[in-house]
Amino acid sequence: MELKEALTRLAQLQAKLSAYNHAMSLIYYDGATTAPKGTAANRGQALSILSEETYKLSTGDETVELLEYLDAHKDELDEKSARTVFLMLKDIRDMKKIPIEEYIAYQQLSVESEDAWHTAKETSDFALFCPYLEKMFDYQKKFAAYCAPEMHPYNYCLNNFEDGLTMEKCDEFFAALRSRLVPLIKKIGERKQLSNDCIMGDFDEAAQERFSIELMKVMGIDLDHCGLGTTEHPFTTSIGSHHDVRITTNYDRENLASSMYSVIHEGGHALYDMGSDDELAYTVLDGGVSMGIHESQSRFYENLLGRSRAFVEYIFPTVAKCFPEQMKGYCAEDLYRAVNLVTPSLIRTEADEVTYCLHVMVRYELEKRIMSGELEVKDLPSEWNRLYFEYLGVEVPNDREGVLQDSHWSGGGIGYFPSYALGSAYGAQLLRKMKETVDVDACLARGDFAPINEWNREHIWKFGALYKPSELLETALGEKFDPFVYTDYLEKKYGELYGI
Amino acid sequence: MELKEALTRLAQLQAKLSAYNHAMSLIYYDGATTAPKGTAANRGQALSILSEETYKLSTGDETVELLEYLDAHKDELDEKSARTVFLMLKDIRDMKKIPIEEYIAYQQLSVESEDAWHTAKETSDFALFCPYLEKMFDYQKKFAAYCAPEMHPYNYCLNNFEDGLTMEKCDEFFAALRSRLVPLIKKIGERKQLSNDCIMGDFDEAAQERFSIELMKVMGIDLDHCGLGTTEHPFTTSIGSHHDVRITTNYDRENLASSMYSVIHEGGHALYDMGSDDELAYTVLDGGVSMGIHESQSRFYENLLGRSRAFVEYIFPTVAKCFPEQMKGYCAEDLYRAVNLVTPSLIRTEADEVTYCLHVMVRYELEKRIMSGELEVKDLPSEWNRLYFEYLGVEVPNDREGVLQDSHWSGGGIGYFPSYALGSAYGAQLLRKMKETVDVDACLARGDFAPINEWNREHIWKFGALYKPSELLETALGEKFDPFVYTDYLEKKYGELYGI
Repeated sequence: MELKEALTRLAQLQAKLSAYNHAMSLIYYDGATTAPKGTAANRGQALSILSEETYKLSTGDETVELLEYLDAHKDELDEKSARTVFLMLKDIRDMKKIPIEEYIAYQQLSVESEDAWHTAKETSDFALFCPYLEKMFDYQKKFAAYCAPEMHPYNYCLNNFEDGLTMEKCDEFFAALRSRLVPLIKKIGERKQLSNDCIMGDFDEAAQERFSIELMKVMGIDLDHCGLGTTEHPFTTSIGSHHDVRITTNYDRENLASSMYSVIHEGGHALYDMGSDDELAYTVLDGGVSMGIHESQSRFYENLLGRSRAFVEYIFPTVAKCFPEQMKGYCAEDLYRAVNLVTPSLIRTEADEVTYCLHVMVRYELEKRIMSGELEVKDLPSEWNRLYFEYLGVEVPNDREGVLQDSHWSGGGIGYFPSYALGSAYGAQLLRKMKETVDVDACLARGDFAPINEWNREHIWKFGALYKPSELLETALGEKFDPFVYTDYLEKKYGELYGI
Repeated sequence: MELKEALTRLAQLQAKLSAYNHAMSLIYYDGATTAPKGTAANRGQALSILSEETYKLSTGDETVELLEYLDAHKDELDEKSARTVFLMLKDIRDMKKIPIEEYIAYQQLSVESEDAWHTAKETSDFALFCPYLEKMFDYQKKFAAYCAPEMHPYNYCLNNFEDGLTMEKCDEFFAALRSRLVPLIKKIGERKQLSNDCIMGDFDEAAQERFSIELMKVMGIDLDHCGLGTTEHPFTTSIGSHHDVRITTNYDRENLASSMYSVIHEGGHALYDMGSDDELAYTVLDGGVSMGIHESQSRFYENLLGRSRAFVEYIFPTVAKCFPEQMKGYCAEDLYRAVNLVTPSLIRTEADEVTYCLHVMVRYELEKRIMSGELEVKDLPSEWNRLYFEYLGVEVPNDREGVLQDSHWSGGGIGYFPSYALGSAYGAQLLRKMKETVDVDACLARGDFAPINEWNREHIWKFGALYKPSELLETALGEKFDPFVYTDYLEKKYGELYGI
């Protein structure tokens, strides 16, 4: 086999995998948005056949032979091909360590577990979900032992979402946040509370949908390649390549900010995915590199930009145009204060910027202890409630608003949560760097996201998965990651808002 | 290989093909309903890869060997397996005659061609669509030469939609219709015109959507397994099996009947697809057997039932509830007359029952002449306009309302149109037969479709593609097909309405 021929075959293989991914992402998206409600079994049948085909294609002898050949010639490969071969081989080697029957059983369990979680959440009945969750954690432990026996099992989980992340790094990171956030929250609690009256009321869903489209336009999202859907839980997915991305939101009739900031958050994910270099389309390097970097973009748009005074002042006339009745008598500053109200609460996805990371820390602590064998799954609800009281000072009234609130664990997303906090902190440092060359506030004040998006494209988006997350981040920053940039940002912004 | 093992493998093969079909149908449906408008190329890439995989799977050596083995043992097979093997082998033998690269290029072209048609229709610019359409016709000619060199190329096209149909049969059928319809239309033209005031006005799209759901419920469509979407051109598709079917409609704000009868028409297709015996799911026998039989069901619900006095009287209170302002001062008889107004017009999908077949005849003539090499695609618009004047007496003001109105040709649906007229005629004869045992008017008068659906299920739906269309029809009818049953029906109904 010649190298050139091998590279052609690599491209064909990736194109084929992209087509399967296109199909599976779309089947998932359709299930969440459009499909009639009795069709889950029909969809499950198609998905299980297509994922088996994908598995065979990704790990088959022909593929392994091709990748091993290319790996043996890695010194002759360009940077992109070398990274592609590395990532694909790594996946195969990991996958091959897991017995196929366990992998299939795990896939099947994930579907049943998500189903059980939905019912358990509806009825606030943890006991119903507990046996599934126990098995999900057990599988993670088994997979960790198969794939990375040299590592702490929780480090294996963390690495699945952020290459190179460890408990040690997380502990240090969360300790830094805690040292600054806990006093800040205490001080805020002592000040007069802001009013959020202007975002509470009755907001027609059709008007909210029109407003969502306006927001996407202002953010510079290309609507010819990015769609908007409605789902129970907002998410973003690429369909086959970065040329087709879908975001979803959920409209809360009583709270304008709920969907507004979901759209901006998911819009940030979409911009990142869509910003991959066109050359990366239909390869494994297309789209974001890790969840930490992904959240650095989504939470960048949602909070650092979306909840800034400059942006809120710019967008207020659009809000007033979409909701003339509801905005009567309010001004931009009212909206700014409403969307930045800080208050310890129960639900992570609705938390403000300041208390958000404490929600993440609760989950981090619990995951770590279960994966270390120090906590049993059946004791999760009581520990959850205890930590919520300890960290946030709130009493959890039921499991629906407590340990059952997030879908992540039900689908095997163990080790995911720290990405949210890390991403928030990455974002703050990226913003400081960006401000060296871009007048971000001036851009926001005139609703011009182009220079901001351009900076992100040049420093983050266009590289797709070409570099390791830590490399990508530090190259963009020109310095090491420093969590105190984030806490400085929060102290300054909320100090001003609350007169501290 | 043992017979039992071969049959298991046949079932697995069909399940896999169903999963690919699931993916491809959904990609198509998504493209028509939801996908951002710049994503056609991305979708085209996935579709071309998935159809290549489907092609390989359907025609690969292993499959051929399996089917040849089963074919050699056909005397030992049950009826379903025998029919399955026959249909799959026939498809393979046809497909194998088409060079794979042409088949793939054709799939790719179909996507681009539909895209071009959309733009061309929007801007009423036939020149933009013409090069694509030329290629679509060229491919049909090539495929006909490959697959059925002994046949006239247009007969090959007709057979793709109705097994056994020929130009000779069509010519005879259309001549029969013309002999009765032309005089009927002339007489109607001499009578006082009916008023359609009550269906013309301003009908909110959201209210029309709610009304569509009501219609689907009344028809007995299981909404847990059938979805409703909005597209430029209404259609019905199964997603992977008869357990998930989607219909679409297009809302005309100014004309209530437009979407109302699209929903009933597509609902008829959906009922037929969904009515397959559950044992047929994930096999090639699942769903309808031919377009002629399919249209016999869709146009049965749309016209024979949906435009009957009994149904209109039943549904009028629902219409009045959904559109109270617009229906003020009108009664059921007004609605009945409005939806049965006969007038030569421009748009096939909005044509009344009496002139409808003339629209089909225009398309039939043009397809036949292009496939015979007597007409060039570039001359289609002028010939279209000439025939519309000759057959219907109407002047076509632009290509948007002329040759560009239908999507069929853009996706390769050449030879499809005669099915609509044939289906209408089949339906009339089926109704006459059904009335021997079911009091159809009484059912409609109380909005109870169950006995009607049950008759269709028992005589048509449940068999899927188990029998040839002509066999299925004649068994259901207990007699030969007779187009004059349809013309008798039209003469009686419209004679009464117009006082002829």
